[in-house]
Parts: sequence; structure tokens; C-alpha cells
Amino acid sequence: MKSFRKELWFEIPQRRGLVNITSEVSKCVHESGVREGLVLVNAMHITASVFINDDEGGLHHDYELWLEKLAPEKPHAQYRHNRTGEDNADAHLKRTIMGREVVVAITQGKLDFGPWEQIFYFELDGQRRKRALVKIIGE
Amino acid sequence: MKSFRKELWFEIPQRRGLVNITSEVSKCVHESGVREGLVLVNAMHITASVFINDDEGGLHHDYELWLEKLAPEKPHAQYRHNRTGEDNADAHLKRTIMGREVVVAITQGKLDFGPWEQIFYFELDGQRRKRALVKIIGE
Amino acid sequence: MKSFRKELWFEIPQRRGLVNITSEVSKCVHESGVREGLVLVNAMHITASVFINDDEGGLHHDYELWLEKLAPEKPHAQYRHNRTGEDNADAHLKRTIMGREVVVAITQGKLDFGPWEQIFYFELDGQRRKRALVKIIGE
Repeated sequence: MKSFRKELWFEIPQRRGLVNITSEVSKCVHESGVREGLVLVNAMHITASVFINDDEGGLHHDYELWLEKLAPEKPHAQYRHNRTGEDNADAHLKRTIMGREVVVAITQGKLDFGPWEQIFYFELDGQRRKRALVKIIGE
Repeated sequence: MKSFRKELWFEIPQRRGLVNITSEVSKCVHESGVREGLVLVNAMHITASVFINDDEGGLHHDYELWLEKLAPEKPHAQYRHNRTGEDNADAHLKRTIMGREVVVAITQGKLDFGPWEQIFYFELDGQRRKRALVKIIGE
Repeated sequence: MKSFRKELWFEIPQRRGLVNITSEVSKCVHESGVREGLVLVNAMHITASVFINDDEGGLHHDYELWLEKLAPEKPHAQYRHNRTGEDNADAHLKRTIMGREVVVAITQGKLDFGPWEQIFYFELDGQRRKRALVKIIGE
């Protein structure tokens, strides 16, 4: 069994932002030499998400409005977590909706994807350096 | 290490519909010859979900009403994604709630499940052929 | 390839409650002898969740209020599932938001975590014995 590990680092200038990391994950799969296996990609922070969906700007705008409706950022005082001095309780909840991680099959040395699947890092409390983990196992 | 791959295809006649795929995934586990390992089952489309819950019709009805409340289909114009000519922005959001994939343990050659766990394909934008991926690794 | 399996049992005295299981999962990783691999931790019940987030009491309080807003327990009669004699339809929906499972990388014999990641069992329909599964594969 082979294994491979790499951290992907981000510094998003806004509070929230999306990065398509599909090609970086593909590079990891290639570097790993794994032909058949699984790749785990997860946010290493609890106010960020890794998820799979469409690389379409309109949809990304819809995510922003929708998450603000389901878990609004403000008023900050509505969340007990923010009494700790944080203002990011909404980011913990938004990440819960979007998910921490994805697991993707590797087949014949490639990400085994349907036609529109793309992997995104979703920063929900940015303006600082944060990272995602790529872990691959297989043969 | 052994690996196994199979696509499961669906054509749901309505926009939304649930299919219990537990026995098909079990067959894959048997065919794979894997005794100890993991099985990944994921939607290969970004407007469909694979998830684990109860095979109870009342609950499935509750899911339908609940998802329509959290991410209503209409009016289509409420979503920027639908300006691309699509009408399925709600399906992208509903699938985000339900999840893309499940990972299940394989123990002694079988799905290692609790008493009520069942795997479903949840079509959220149907009336066309779509598929899920079953990928197994182990020994 | 090595594999390891353990069930973690819980009996939460209230309907809902959180248990930090990070150290128990770490012990499993140590016992497994796996240095490089993946660990799957999943609820074996469909009214409970395993998820990763912050071990901060204020946030846990926020989760309680937020889940009650997105999928209220009462009135029980609002859910068709509860016509079966159950009163836990809300728990099925809350668990859908929180997720069934997490997959975590194992690197150099340890959980490969970011600075604040902690694993929780989230009971959503308690007052009885229930369990989570830890399954490890790797080398």
C-alpha cells in the first residue's frame, strides 16, 4: 500500500471565498503514484469546508446568499460562541452545512469523477493563512 | 490490496425520487472479494445525493417537504445559477444538505451497519440517466 | 494492509447531547498499529451524528438552538414519520445536517488534525444505548 500527504495553503483576502482545488488534488494523485485507491481532502480548520459541486459563478453567489439565510453572520451577539471574543460562530455553522471533507475514488491513476464534479475549498472565516489536507492511500 | 469499481445507473421519472441501493452495494462488496476495507458510494452528479438513513416512507415524505423549505425550487428566478438557462439551482443546494457520498466499513465481507442503516440514491433533478459510483478498497 | 474495528457505546441521559470522542479514537489508532491510513468513524444509528468541530460549550449551545430552528422537534405531528408511533423525525433531519460520519487521515501513527479539530458523537434521540463504529485501514 502506498500513501501520500500534502497540505494546501490559502490566504483568502475576504471573510468568505471559494477556491477550485481540483487541479491541485489531481497533481497530488499523479505525484502519489497511486493507480487504485481513495483520496481524502479535508479542511484542517473548523471554519472552512471542502466540498464538491459545480464551478459556476452564479451558483457560488447563490451559496453565499443561502448560507447567510440558514446561518446569518450578524448580529454577532445572537451566538453564545461569540462571547469568547470570536465573531465567527456563523462560520462554524456554515461549514457544518457545506461539510468538512470529501472522499474521491482514484481509478487508473485519476480522480474518478462524473462530468461536472469539481473540488472546492470554501473559506468561511478568512483573512489569514489556513490549509486543507490531501491524503491518499492505495496501490 | 484489492480494489473494485462499479457504476449504478438510474433514470427517475420525476424531478425528485429516492432509490434504496443497499442490496446493490452489498452485491458489489460480495463481488469485490474484500473482507476488510472501505466502500465509497458517491453521486457522480452534482444535483444528486447518496446518503444513509431509514427506509420509511413517512420520513421520505418529510425529507421532501423539509428540503423544499430549506431550499425551495420556485420561483426559479430567485437563484442566479438559473440565469444560465438551468432551473436546478435548488437541486445543487438540496444535495449539499443531503451530502454527496457515504463511506461504509466492510467487516468479514459485509457492510458493517447498525440496525436501521440503509443507503439511498436521492435524485434531485431527474428525468434523465444519471449514476452513482461504488469504489471498494481492502483485502 | 492492516485493519481494525471497535464499537464505542453511549447512553446519553437526555434526548440530545454531545460527547468528545477524540481521545477514544486516538486510542484506537494506537491499538491498530496503523502508521499511514484512514480512520472512518460513523454513527451506527440514523438519529445520531459523528462530526468534527470545536470543543467549545458556547458553540455547542448554538448548535442546539440552530438545529431546533432548522428542524424543530415539536409539534411532533408536523412529521409524517411520527405517525409510525415514533417522535424522532426531527432527529433524522438534524443528523442529516450534522452528518453521519467522518474520515480522518492517519499520518505517522496519529490522527492528522488541524489545530482545533475534535471528533464528537452527537446524540439526537437518546435515553438508550447506542453506538458509533471506528474502522481503520492502512499500514
